[in-house]
Amino acid sequence: MNAEIVAVGSEMLTPERVDTNSLYLTAELNNLGVEVVSKYVVGDHLERLAGVVRLAVSRSEIVILSGGLGPTEDDLTRDAVAAALNRQLVYHPEIAEALEQRFARLNRKMAEVNKRQAFVIAGAEILPNERGTAPGQWVEQNGSALMLLPGPPHELKAMFERQCLPRLAAIVPKQVIRTLELRVAGMGESDLDQLIAPVYKKYQNPATTILAGAGDIQIHFRAQCASPAEAEALLCEVSGPIEVLLGDRIYSRTGDSIEAVAGKLLLERRATLTVAESCTGGLLGERLTSVPGSSEYFLGGFITYSNALKTELLGVSAELLAQHGAVSQPVAEAMAAGARERAGATYALSITGIAGPGGATDTKPVGTVFIGLAGPSGSEVLQRQVFGDRERIRMFASQLALDFLRRTLTRRG
Amino acid sequence: MNAEIVAVGSEMLTPERVDTNSLYLTAELNNLGVEVVSKYVVGDHLERLAGVVRLAVSRSEIVILSGGLGPTEDDLTRDAVAAALNRQLVYHPEIAEALEQRFARLNRKMAEVNKRQAFVIAGAEILPNERGTAPGQWVEQNGSALMLLPGPPHELKAMFERQCLPRLAAIVPKQVIRTLELRVAGMGESDLDQLIAPVYKKYQNPATTILAGAGDIQIHFRAQCASPAEAEALLCEVSGPIEVLLGDRIYSRTGDSIEAVAGKLLLERRATLTVAESCTGGLLGERLTSVPGSSEYFLGGFITYSNALKTELLGVSAELLAQHGAVSQPVAEAMAAGARERAGATYALSITGIAGPGGATDTKPVGTVFIGLAGPSGSEVLQRQVFGDRERIRMFASQLALDFLRRTLTRRG
Repeated sequence: MNAEIVAVGSEMLTPERVDTNSLYLTAELNNLGVEVVSKYVVGDHLERLAGVVRLAVSRSEIVILSGGLGPTEDDLTRDAVAAALNRQLVYHPEIAEALEQRFARLNRKMAEVNKRQAFVIAGAEILPNERGTAPGQWVEQNGSALMLLPGPPHELKAMFERQCLPRLAAIVPKQVIRTLELRVAGMGESDLDQLIAPVYKKYQNPATTILAGAGDIQIHFRAQCASPAEAEALLCEVSGPIEVLLGDRIYSRTGDSIEAVAGKLLLERRATLTVAESCTGGLLGERLTSVPGSSEYFLGGFITYSNALKTELLGVSAELLAQHGAVSQPVAEAMAAGARERAGATYALSITGIAGPGGATDTKPVGTVFIGLAGPSGSEVLQRQVFGDRERIRMFASQLALDFLRRTLTRRG
Repeated sequence: MNAEIVAVGSEMLTPERVDTNSLYLTAELNNLGVEVVSKYVVGDHLERLAGVVRLAVSRSEIVILSGGLGPTEDDLTRDAVAAALNRQLVYHPEIAEALEQRFARLNRKMAEVNKRQAFVIAGAEILPNERGTAPGQWVEQNGSALMLLPGPPHELKAMFERQCLPRLAAIVPKQVIRTLELRVAGMGESDLDQLIAPVYKKYQNPATTILAGAGDIQIHFRAQCASPAEAEALLCEVSGPIEVLLGDRIYSRTGDSIEAVAGKLLLERRATLTVAESCTGGLLGERLTSVPGSSEYFLGGFITYSNALKTELLGVSAELLAQHGAVSQPVAEAMAAGARERAGATYALSITGIAGPGGATDTKPVGTVFIGLAGPSGSEVLQRQVFGDRERIRMFASQLALDFLRRTLTRRG
């Protein structure tokens, strides 16, 4: 079965906004085994919206509209769908009364315009809105089901979950969906794709999607079958060879972020961590503390942006800084060692690099990054050349640091 | 004049991806005075895509398609547009030869499938692709102009800028667009809207858009007129009263971020800054150092997540921590004072708070935040209650801290 999703509202046609309701709806529809084949964003314009609804309903069994159900003159979804389906709008006094009571409970008088929300397409079922004033509608025509849902995400989600999912389950053929997600750190997207495409390209089912961030790649597999056993077998068939190819570059099979994975490894070992950051300026600490409960293993750290603070806070000697420069293997090592000692932590991660746009030298281009790791059995430094802008280099560097810690903790058991 | 934008590709119909090319194209079209009235995302399916193109071209003067121009069988944009316009596809051997030469220069043999890219819609102009293999196309029919552009953003942008903008300038009536952006810190979106809606709601032109983040709101005004003087007068007419209403809550009229504004104020005063972060774990430092050149005023700082590090690194006494708790006015003050002294900075900002989900007490709910600021003329502490999840509370707290610094620096001249 196919679905089309229509987001209504001129505000979503500006250069700043994207429609995100359709992402939630797509995930829910995919879980039912329904494919989304087209999405639309249409402004508050009766004829244009009716045209899109006519097109969608002519080719897909499910059409979901979000937005345009409010009380103002801009809210035209009811009128447009009625026009597209050649049906009348019927005034339901009980909806208007319920709205009036809602306002009365809040000690407010209802403005007359709110009565627009009491018009329902002839033959449609009314979908109650638990979180707002605009009721939704469910209407069927020529084998297609149309849903009119409110635009605010929390209203839409509640209505879709409680009102639409049960109705959809009754008309969508039963299918089993199983998903698997692998996360990989420190590889480029094209290198990864070159390595694993020969495996996953052989399969339409499971469907494979690759999402790449700075030094972080997610591989999503989605199998759709008649039985759970069949779906899980298909997932294994594709992910097995890919897991072999990627080896320990995979840091998560559960959707956990690398900061959460590194945190769990520390917790299991009853180890603590501190950080010493130069070019990332606090990003590594920010990522580690984005995990609730991180105070169990993360003590805190040092943002040593200036050379003076590298010396004062971490004890990196001025001679070392003068001889090798702040972005160097020895300074990364000294930063980690100094942070570990001064914070009294089991492990210390340091980052020093050139995030750009300025600061490059002949031998150290923008993107030069050194990661230091000091621990009970000594220290190590990793050097990498990262490509991209300031934001990407900083994010990639923090990713490399977290992955360096993960690999070290895993290796040492 | 109206435009419609069609993004082509099944990968953009997954729950993880949004089309972002249309945001760039919308900004460029708006700058020409062209309104975007509908957007579409269509999978790799000939009939569905042709249906959407037929609809778009029947109602708008400009139709832009992105994606689906590559060499594989999934790439159906050429075929679908030709079908929608009832035109033939014509093979252009010179395109195939140029592609073959391109591959030869890279010492690679061109795969036969690449010749698909040499098919051009009858009567279309070929748009050279400087950054990739797939050429674009420009075709006109019944008063509408259609553009077929490649999907990768850097290819699309280069082609749109060099090939499409000059052609569009020749067909779009001349209009002047002027924009103005105000940025406001530390206010909730609904409070702000309640305050300023009575002003901006009176105007369709300029159009007003409000974008809200955690403790950060952008107000965009866009005026579209026949002359620059008229557009600028209209902008003043709307923004003037709004600037009066918002007063010093406005931190920027130029699009600068608050970290950049605070940085400029420090630089002008030849002052330096350090930070002491507890619940934000490095976020404040990360934001300050996201500004290129921030090493001119930002020395570094302290991530004191544990109480022990608050004492060791900042000299916050154990008694103070025991008596008032780590999230308190006196501890915020002592953190700022300790950081300022130990880093030798002109100013020190501290943040301590309860980001949740755990850590709340009877008197200190999740979202309790204290911001300390120590400077040459003493120290101050700001207390705020922030609502939302862990991520929002941390972002809001860093925003409050940066705004506290900005207001203090501005006030002291």
